[in-house]
Amino acid sequence: MKWSAREKKIARAAYDKAYKIEMQRIQEAVYEKAKNFKEENDVWRLHDYLTRKRREVDEKYDYRYSVLIFVLGRVLRERLISDEDLEGLSQDKVAMIRRVLEI
Amino acid sequence: MKWSAREKKIARAAYDKAYKIEMQRIQEAVYEKAKNFKEENDVWRLHDYLTRKRREVDEKYDYRYSVLIFVLGRVLRERLISDEDLEGLSQDKVAMIRRVLEI
Repeated sequence: MKWSAREKKIARAAYDKAYKIEMQRIQEAVYEKAKNFKEENDVWRLHDYLTRKRREVDEKYDYRYSVLIFVLGRVLRERLISDEDLEGLSQDKVAMIRRVLEI
Repeated sequence: MKWSAREKKIARAAYDKAYKIEMQRIQEAVYEKAKNFKEENDVWRLHDYLTRKRREVDEKYDYRYSVLIFVLGRVLRERLISDEDLEGLSQDKVAMIRRVLEI
């Protein structure tokens, strides 16, 4: 699958947007948890949460063109990006990205 | 080294006090960090911090009587407990605990 320079730019912007929102959500979740610490072990629960999230984010955000369709489909499904963020990609790419939603 | 029932009680209270303060300090540090998140990677820096602290706390808080002198000496050095928390222990124990401070 070939990506034109313009498509690469659009894909990169969508990818970066999703990543940024993802990280903001984690920051907010961490702040909420830290604000509501009660038991001593709550910090280790937060540690477990961050270990899980870090693994998840590392695995999810992979910008190789060979997996980009899948990555964009996943962040679209998770509403980190919306259809408008894909405008300008070829119809077949958008169709494939949307197919990921059905998996 | 023998610990009388009374000494065990005193040692346990000192140990629990140190642990409690230690965990409170970590909770406060986490809250401060979470309140001041700026860059995206700050959450992973917090994760690294917690990984380090968890290892440190796991290693530090060991309530076997065979290592208790050393543990109490360490938390005394780190001002998590004070001399008064050791009152009631035999003189030789207090002397040994204080020697840990010089290591």
